[in-house]
Parts: sequence; C-alpha cells; structure tokens
Amino acid sequence: MIKAGIIGATGYAGGELVRILMGHKDVEVKWYGSRSYIDQKYAAVYQNLFQIVEGVCKDDNMEELANQVDVIFTATPQGYCASLLKEEILSKVKIIDLSADFRIKDQKVYEEWYKIEHKSPQFLPEAVYGLCEINREKIKGARILANPGCYPTCSILSIYPLAREGLIDMNTLIIDAKSGTSGAGRGAKVDNLYCEVNENIKAYGVATHRHTPEIEEQLTLASGTKTVLNFTPHLVPMNRGILVTAYASLKREVSYDKVKEIYDRYYAGEQFVRVLEKGVCPQTKWVEGSNYVDVNFQIDPRTGRVIMMGAMDNLVKGAAGQAVQNMNLMFGLPEKEGLNLVPMFP
Amino acid sequence: MIKAGIIGATGYAGGELVRILMGHKDVEVKWYGSRSYIDQKYAAVYQNLFQIVEGVCKDDNMEELANQVDVIFTATPQGYCASLLKEEILSKVKIIDLSADFRIKDQKVYEEWYKIEHKSPQFLPEAVYGLCEINREKIKGARILANPGCYPTCSILSIYPLAREGLIDMNTLIIDAKSGTSGAGRGAKVDNLYCEVNENIKAYGVATHRHTPEIEEQLTLASGTKTVLNFTPHLVPMNRGILVTAYASLKREVSYDKVKEIYDRYYAGEQFVRVLEKGVCPQTKWVEGSNYVDVNFQIDPRTGRVIMMGAMDNLVKGAAGQAVQNMNLMFGLPEKEGLNLVPMFP
Amino acid sequence: MIKAGIIGATGYAGGELVRILMGHKDVEVKWYGSRSYIDQKYAAVYQNLFQIVEGVCKDDNMEELANQVDVIFTATPQGYCASLLKEEILSKVKIIDLSADFRIKDQKVYEEWYKIEHKSPQFLPEAVYGLCEINREKIKGARILANPGCYPTCSILSIYPLAREGLIDMNTLIIDAKSGTSGAGRGAKVDNLYCEVNENIKAYGVATHRHTPEIEEQLTLASGTKTVLNFTPHLVPMNRGILVTAYASLKREVSYDKVKEIYDRYYAGEQFVRVLEKGVCPQTKWVEGSNYVDVNFQIDPRTGRVIMMGAMDNLVKGAAGQAVQNMNLMFGLPEKEGLNLVPMFP
Amino acid sequence: MIKAGIIGATGYAGGELVRILMGHKDVEVKWYGSRSYIDQKYAAVYQNLFQIVEGVCKDDNMEELANQVDVIFTATPQGYCASLLKEEILSKVKIIDLSADFRIKDQKVYEEWYKIEHKSPQFLPEAVYGLCEINREKIKGARILANPGCYPTCSILSIYPLAREGLIDMNTLIIDAKSGTSGAGRGAKVDNLYCEVNENIKAYGVATHRHTPEIEEQLTLASGTKTVLNFTPHLVPMNRGILVTAYASLKREVSYDKVKEIYDRYYAGEQFVRVLEKGVCPQTKWVEGSNYVDVNFQIDPRTGRVIMMGAMDNLVKGAAGQAVQNMNLMFGLPEKEGLNLVPMFP
Repeated sequence: MIKAGIIGATGYAGGELVRILMGHKDVEVKWYGSRSYIDQKYAAVYQNLFQIVEGVCKDDNMEELANQVDVIFTATPQGYCASLLKEEILSKVKIIDLSADFRIKDQKVYEEWYKIEHKSPQFLPEAVYGLCEINREKIKGARILANPGCYPTCSILSIYPLAREGLIDMNTLIIDAKSGTSGAGRGAKVDNLYCEVNENIKAYGVATHRHTPEIEEQLTLASGTKTVLNFTPHLVPMNRGILVTAYASLKREVSYDKVKEIYDRYYAGEQFVRVLEKGVCPQTKWVEGSNYVDVNFQIDPRTGRVIMMGAMDNLVKGAAGQAVQNMNLMFGLPEKEGLNLVPMFP
Repeated sequence: MIKAGIIGATGYAGGELVRILMGHKDVEVKWYGSRSYIDQKYAAVYQNLFQIVEGVCKDDNMEELANQVDVIFTATPQGYCASLLKEEILSKVKIIDLSADFRIKDQKVYEEWYKIEHKSPQFLPEAVYGLCEINREKIKGARILANPGCYPTCSILSIYPLAREGLIDMNTLIIDAKSGTSGAGRGAKVDNLYCEVNENIKAYGVATHRHTPEIEEQLTLASGTKTVLNFTPHLVPMNRGILVTAYASLKREVSYDKVKEIYDRYYAGEQFVRVLEKGVCPQTKWVEGSNYVDVNFQIDPRTGRVIMMGAMDNLVKGAAGQAVQNMNLMFGLPEKEGLNLVPMFP
Repeated sequence: MIKAGIIGATGYAGGELVRILMGHKDVEVKWYGSRSYIDQKYAAVYQNLFQIVEGVCKDDNMEELANQVDVIFTATPQGYCASLLKEEILSKVKIIDLSADFRIKDQKVYEEWYKIEHKSPQFLPEAVYGLCEINREKIKGARILANPGCYPTCSILSIYPLAREGLIDMNTLIIDAKSGTSGAGRGAKVDNLYCEVNENIKAYGVATHRHTPEIEEQLTLASGTKTVLNFTPHLVPMNRGILVTAYASLKREVSYDKVKEIYDRYYAGEQFVRVLEKGVCPQTKWVEGSNYVDVNFQIDPRTGRVIMMGAMDNLVKGAAGQAVQNMNLMFGLPEKEGLNLVPMFP
Repeated sequence: MIKAGIIGATGYAGGELVRILMGHKDVEVKWYGSRSYIDQKYAAVYQNLFQIVEGVCKDDNMEELANQVDVIFTATPQGYCASLLKEEILSKVKIIDLSADFRIKDQKVYEEWYKIEHKSPQFLPEAVYGLCEINREKIKGARILANPGCYPTCSILSIYPLAREGLIDMNTLIIDAKSGTSGAGRGAKVDNLYCEVNENIKAYGVATHRHTPEIEEQLTLASGTKTVLNFTPHLVPMNRGILVTAYASLKREVSYDKVKEIYDRYYAGEQFVRVLEKGVCPQTKWVEGSNYVDVNFQIDPRTGRVIMMGAMDNLVKGAAGQAVQNMNLMFGLPEKEGLNLVPMFP
C-alpha cells in the first residue's frame, strides 16, 4: 500500500485527487494538508466525501510529511513547492507537483512569465515533465514529477502527432482554448462568482497566459523547431472541461487518411487518448469525470490549414487524474489503476 | 457472470445503466435494445462510451432476449413492459422494470393516474417494489422488480423513519420536490430545449403528478395510516439531481436528539443513505454520480412542523443505480457491487 | 427632473437600479455611492454600462448627499441605513431603503431575527412598507419607504387575495421558495462561486430565514389573523428569478372560477401583476428583466389545499424595479414610468 | 405609424423582434406569421408577452400581407423568402430578410454552401447587405434588406477597421467564434436539449459553416483583397451571446496607440459599437439584451499577430435588433429608435 500525502488538499484539484484516490486500491491517503482548514474534518469541506473520508485537515509540513508517506502531491500556488523542496526530502519521498514550478526547464522563462523567483532551480534539470503519453519512460524513474498544466495537456496531445511528424508549419500555430470554471480554483473572487460567470463567455490572459511557454517548450521539443505561438484561453460557464481548437498551416497537401493514420499510430497503445471517428468533433461532456482526452482534426483544403481539436476534463487528465497516472508509472503499478473512470453523461 | 439485456438502452436512464454496468465486475451487457437506433453502434449514440462499449443497438424482442440473458432491464415508456410480459418469459429471466408499470399495487389507481390500461395486471401481486432500504428481503426473491420512481425514492427515504415511528401527522404532509432536467428524458421536445430550461424554474404537474399515488401507497404502508398528500415537482436548470423538501406537523413535541436518533437507527446499516450532521442541508451536487441519498431534517418549534430534506442523483439512486442495487440483491451479490461511485464535486 | 443618489450602488440591486434609472426620463443619478470602489468609474465596475454611465463612485456621506438630491436609495447591508438616518436628513430628502431596516414594525422582532440592534427605532412608526399593490395610498405620502424583501414581495402577492378574503387557514401556510443566485449579493464568498452553485440546488436558512417575520407581519395584517408559517428558501443555479410555491388548506370548498374571480378582481387595475390563465404555471424566465409578478393557483380537491404560485425577477420587482415604482408614487409620476420593461426570452 | 408584418414570428429571432418592436413608438405589428401555431394566441407561445401582445398567429401569405403592411420581416429558414418574393410584392412593401437568401451576391457561392437552389436570383443585385455601420447610405434606399448573419456581424465589426486600413494580412485570418444556444433556433432536436448542451462545449461546422462565405465576401470588399479564411463556431452553454476571437498577422509593426486610434476613428459616430479600454476583453454578458457590439484587440509582439475580439447579443445586434436598426434607416427614423436597450447584468 502506497502512503500518500497531499499539500493543498482543499482546492478543486486537491479535492479531485482525493476523490480518485478513494477508488485506488493501492493507495492510502495519510495527510490532508490545508492551511485554511486546519483541524477541520476534510469531509466538512467537501461534503460529497462525507462518510467516505474520515481524515482531518493538517498544516503543511513537508519535512514531517516526508517521514510518513511515500509520495507527496502538491496542489499549491505557484512558487510554493519550489520553496519547500530540499534534497533531504527528496531522499525520502517522491514529489508530484501539480503547480508550474518544475514544468519549464528554463528558469528565466519561468520567472518572466510567472513573475516570481524560482527558489530551487537546482532541481529543474532532474524534474520530469509528466505527460505520460510522451515521457513514459522518464517518468518511471522520476523523483520530482512536474504534472503538466491543464491547457498544455490538452493542447499538446491534440497537436503532438502532427508536430512530431513535421506536417505543420510550427510558426502558424494558433491555439484557441476554452475552459470550465473549476480551472480558476476555489478562491473567493468576485470574478468567479456564479452570477459573473453564468451566461457569459470571455477571453482572458490574451497573449500573456502562463501556459504559453510550457506549450511552446514541449512542442519545440516535439517538432525540433523553435515554436512561438498564440494561445488564448476563454472562461466558459461550466464546471469542468477544456476544449482546444488549434490551427496550423500544413507544410504540404495531405489526405485525411494519412493524417488519421498518424493520429491512430501515435495513440494506438494509449489507454487515455481516444482518436474520434471522421467528422466527430470532441465535446467536453463526453469525457467528464474521466481521464480521457478525445482528439480529432479537420483539414481545410480551401486554406491549407488543419484544425486540431481536443477535449478533456481539466480536473482529471488536466490535473488529478494525470497525477495518479504518473504516480502509477513511478511506483510500477498498472498505468490505469484507479483510473477506470467511465465518463458521465449527461 | 450475469448476462444482462436492456430494453430502452438509449434513454438517459438506459445510458446511465450502461455506464454503471461497465464498472460492475459480475455483469456483461449482451443486448442494447433501442428501437430508434437499430443497427447503430451504441457508442455513436453515447460518445462518452466510445471505445468502452462495443455493442450495436438492437430491436426490442423480449422473447428472444429471455433466451439469451439472465436479467432484463426495461427503461421504457409507461405501459410498454406490462404489454410484453408473459409467464414464459418470467420462467427464464428476471425482470427489473424502470417504468411505473408494476410500482402500484392497485390496478385502478395506476390506470387513473397514468391514463392507460394495464396489460398484465395478473403480475401485480407478485411484483416487488424495489426500494432496497425498505423491502430488502422481498427483493431477494423477486422475479419482477418494480424499480421505484425517482421522486418517490427520494421522498420516501426522507420521510420514512418519521412516518414509520408515527411521529408525524400523515395528513399534513406536503412534498415540494425539485429535479434536474435529465428526469424529463431524451425526447426532442421544445419544452426541454436548452434555452427553455436554462435560467428558469417552474412547477409542473401540480396536484396531478403520477408519482403522487406511488409515494402515498408506500407511506401508507409505512405509517399504517391512509395517506393523502400534496406533491409538487419543479424543473431546475441542471442536468442531474433531485432535492426533496417535505413538511409535516409533528404529532407531539420532540427534541432534535430524539429525531436524529431515529434517522440514525433506521439508516445505521445502510450503505447508500447518509444522515447528515446537525444543520447541514442536503445539496444535490454532493451526491452527483453516486448512489447516495443524503437526508436531514429541521424542527420548527414555532409552527410545530418538521422539515424533512433529501438529495439524490435522479439517474443513479433514482433509476439506474437503484436498479443495479436491486439486481445485486436478486442475484445474491454484495449490495454495493458496481456501486462504489464516489460523488463528483464540483 | 428628480435628482437621485444611491448608497450601495455597486451591489447587484444597486447596479439594477442604475440600469433602470438610465431609462427613466424624469430621473438623473447624481451620486454613485460605493465604499469599495471610491474614485473608480462606475462603468468600470459594471462594464455593461460603459459609455452609458459617466459617473465615478463616491463615499457614503448621507448628510452631504441630502443637500444634493431629492431621493436617496440605500441598497446597503442590514443596519446601515438605520444607523445613518436623522430627522435633519429626512427634512430634506426622501429615503427609499432597499434593506430590511424599516420593513418590520416591531423593533423586537427585527432585532431577534436580524441579530442586530436597531439604531433609529423612532422612525419605525412613520416608515411605509412599500408593496405598491397593497399600500399605494400610504406610499404616496411617505418620507421613509421600506422597500420590501424579494421573497416577501413574491410570497405576499401570490397569497394576498386569498388571505384577505379569508379563504385559507392561515396556520396551514407553507411557503417553499426558490431564488436565483443574484439574491445572494456580489460579495466574494466560496458558497457563491460558480462551481459551488452550478449543477446544484439546496435549501438554506430552514425555519430561520429573516424574511419569515416580514411575510408573517404582512399576511397577519391582510388576513386579520395572527399568522405563523413555514418559509423555506432554496438556491437555484440561475442568475435571476424567484419562484414561490405556497400551500394552504382551504377553509371551505371553493370552485376554480370563484378563486380565479378573486385574483382577477384584486389585480384588475395592477400594471405589474399578471394572473395567468388556467393551468399555466408561472416561470421565472417569463418575467426576467421586467417588473412583473406572474401569479396563479391550483386547487387540489384530494387534499383540500390550494397551491399558490408566483414568479418574479428578484432584482426588478424584488428590489430595484419596485424601488422605482415606489419612487414614482412618492413623486407623483405615472407608476409605470421607466418600468416599461418587456421580459426577455430566452 | 409604420405597420409591420413578421413571417416566422415564433422562432427565437422572431420572438426577439416582437419584444423589441413592443418598445418602438413608431411601429405597430399587424401580422404574427407562424405556420406551426396558426390561430393560437402569440402570447401563448411566448408567455413573457402575456398581456403585452394581443395578436393571434396567422399563416404566411406574403401577397396578402403586402397589402396590409409597410414592412415585412422574414425570420424564416433558408430559401423560403427567396421562394416567395415577387416584383409585385416589392412594389408595395419593404422586405427585411433575416435569413441568408440575399446576403451573398454570388448565386453560385450561395448555392454551394447552402445546398439549395436560389429561387429569385434576379433580386440579388439590388438587395442591400444590412450591416449599418458599413452600408448606412445604401440601406436608406433599400427595398430588399439582407439582414446579416449573427456570426458575420460580430466577426466583421471586430475586424473591419484593420482590414480596411490594410494593416493585416488577410490570408492569415482565423476566426474562432462562440455562440449561445439560441442561435440554434427553437426546433425540437436532441442536440439542443438542455442536458446535451449544458456543461458542454464543442466546435461544429468546422471548415464548412455557411457563414464563412458571407464573412469572406464582406472582408474582401473591405480590404480590396480576395480573402479566404478559417471560421470555426462553437456551441456554448448559455442562452445568448456571441464572442469572436480573431487572429491575423500584422503586415508591419504597429503600436497599440495607432491601432486604438483606428478603431476609435472608425466607430466614433457609431451608437452601437463600443471600443473598450486598453486591456479590457469583451464579455457577452456586458451586451446581453442590447444592440451593442463591444470590440477590442491585443497585439502580440512575440508572434506579430493581432487578436481582435468582439462580443454581441446574437438575437439583438445579431438578428432582431439589427433588423430594427435597418428598418429605422429605411424609414427615415432615428437609427436608435426602439433600441435604447441597456444591457442587463447579471
């Protein structure tokens, strides 16, 4: 039985992690870290877990925690995990960080986009970017796992096969993404009130969103071409789900069948990526509550572009589910363990 | 391995049944009956099940079906199951009927409220009303299981302990219920269009809703007093969930602790009923996707009434989940098998 | 031209008041009071009013304000208006208070339910309860107008004709109400975040909600019988709208036509109350953005009860619209001035 | 007083037209055409208009209608208006067509994208494309007014100034649009049921949507460059609103101030286009119920692109409001008459 501790257990990603781990037969949650709710019952914060979770919220003490558990999940604000990490901790426990602290290899890029100083850059080289479908082998041996951002997960998996195959002009890439509101977290802000979000849609962080360099770094690696792109996120009146609509110019004329064959080949063995059938556009509702990413594409011969689409549950494959998938790999468990989550419809 | 067939597999209750059975280790779905989608892939109707369900939709042939499976679920319009049932079928297979055909013992009452003729009244006496928490022993031996209505399940479980204990005046009972829109089914009607339901709430079927006599019959049995009550359903802009707010006059003064002790005692061994803590009102979101019913109550000393509340997922405990719970009992499986569904929040 | 000042202009009720007054040809808003946004452009807080409202938010100084305007609207937390009011102010300006401070005549009842001390009980006797359909004549001469609560407006107008006519047993009254989320205000609280409210419904303030004594007082006056009732509000995932479903035992058998005749007679001359046709249940969407209250009823001969229903936009007839209707009466303008708001559907 | 007739009065655009015309002091609606609801009260179809609209639905007889009214609005399926139009009708009455029949000058392009034969191509040359901000003078003299599509209105107004000024490379244009569900009409289809749309987002008509050639034609005219672009609409779980996010490469480096100056100049005299302040992204909620289009832009120096954004109420500026604006121009009324609609928030 793997013993797990969670720091930041009462945010939405933390809550989803607890929900998933409750159904994981090889994991026991030993520590529900939450500075805001210390000494309160965890199930009083998330009443959906009443009579399911018995634990009480504790303060964040990573050093003490490292003595008690095998793996620590940090679902915390940017900068927090990096400020706590030490070699001594890493010698005892594996870290799966759901924040952005170890996602970007270049410290300067991180500091520019996140506007904070990185407190433990010495660990950047060894941290592994945890997009299982791309980095599976490296993940298995990781001590520090940088769990990918929600937008990057959906964006990269939608684009990866064509980027890797060199079919698209990487400098024409435009990613227009739409997210449910749980992505904004559980902080009490006027902007996230029901009445402000409901019956409304808006773009935000236009040309400045922090997930941009993360996507660029990974697609640069995939394509072998320095990639600079536009990424525009939108806030959608729904709880869960991310939809990505990405546009790129094809380098040469290519048939539907050829592109379909590429997607099928890249994701043939993958348990959590579904390449949809011809003409079927991904919908976030079809993956809700599950660890799936649904992808598909459409070629537009009029413009010579390909439109690549992906849908995902931002809290599962975009956060907690992927974290568990990574944990499974890191601990030698079957990758799907605890993740047999059938999407819920409607 | 139990072989199951579903007639009416492409309605919302049928779809939910498939979702749940996909996670049930002792059941295999052999027949996806759907007259509207014959020969189409089931997963093309419910794309959430793409690459999970491989079956193709078939016509409804109960006699052929009875030769192939151990249990037939009928998630069909009122009157349909009763029109198909025969002794020959029942000799081969167990029937779990999600429609109202066998819920009400009195044929006349059924025909008055449902405005249709009952086509197989000879089976009414042996049919068992499948509210597991009340009829567990009878369910185990049933051939025809009448799966309770969604509103009745939530209403009865919220009121049952006090009705049974004789604490409330049954003739003062008023049930004000609120349901998500999936309860209205997947039929293409203007009234159920997104724009008609969204940002809107209304009562419907006021003083005439068909679930009224079902609730009355069960509460009459529970209390030993002929019960006539008001039941008013409302349509709420959400996909899933039923909330019941029920009012009754207390026959005598009684303390919070006494009433709490009654609820706790009645539901002590129950795996799917959660009696919430003092002052916590049930919320539908806390049970979404799960087989739980959350109940609680509030005494109002000013008026001498008790307000009884319950929340439930109408498609799970109110339909497909309860059907599986009944199936488990009928086939001697652990009652919770396949129903370890942790509520999803948010 | 009437000069108006608003204290609490950046809450939802304040914002709605501004929206309505922008279309009122006899009123000019001179003061946008908002402690949270001092010196910020009002239209930067409510971007819907960009290029429509030019004003800047100011601090709350009721004494200064009284010198500049003819009427002050207070859309402020409970207790605030009462703490500011003085005879000197009232000698210069009319007050329309959207808070509860002057709604309840009995100071003790106010203090018990609101848990605060009333700071200017000397004005309670002269304050007029501003439900126009009932108190029209008194309103015309008022200096202090207590604008009714949202739930009480909809509840009282739904029940008033039958209470006044003595047709219902006032001690059997149960009011089950459902409100959109704007009723909870614009404060940044976790409970009102999009993800907490969406896809969810719950009761709150069960047997303890502060609007209870307000409804009781008015219905006691209407019926001439001391009325104690149950009032249960629910939070519904929608921005606007209140739906009331009220239950009472009829004192004697009475026909549909008789009851319909009563409702029609009571509301015959009313411009903002619509008695719906037989069998049509009120829906909140049908009154959205307008000052209408739609009412109807259903007699249940089985239980001897009548179910009374009402629907209203909580921010208009339940707050800002009614405030303007009161202002029109107080200043001798046509009651409908500025309130020709056609409900928006869908 | 202008007499107006509406064919297709019971669709969502027709209903919105009625709502707006109820507040227009110079227009009287004489004919509520609706084949589905002949002889039924119009207010029984749209209960929001109960006691506001007294008319009864009539069949569609354009010839009879032409004798009775001054202007006919057709809010009908594609092809219908073109099939009815005759010179004799046009000699008596002005036509404002909310369908696509006269929007595209090139008959072949229309027939290719709409997959129907155009039944009165002889009128195509004289029909005027009714985007008031661009074609104001021509609109004044029009007999046949082609009211623009919802997506094209928002797209073109967002892009027009930069296209016209030659600042952007027209062959790099990508328009990613998001619409509320009322755009899908009031037809009873499973895809538009509440439970299918709610908590969901999807792209549709990818690379094939019929509004594409309309946008291309207008932007070709504006820029003087043959424009072929990608247009991708998405269905968003909200009733109303369209948001456009458009991307194009800048032909040369240009400052924020310069671009802002262009937008401000182009829309300086416009009553219904609001150029937002720096850094403020348009939100659909801020224009709900009004005839405004809010536009803004963001330059991304990293990629050399400009992101152009627009938000609008699809039923108002995207359909009925723009139709009234056109009517005002065609009849010599003030352009804003009947359109003083303040956006409703929340």
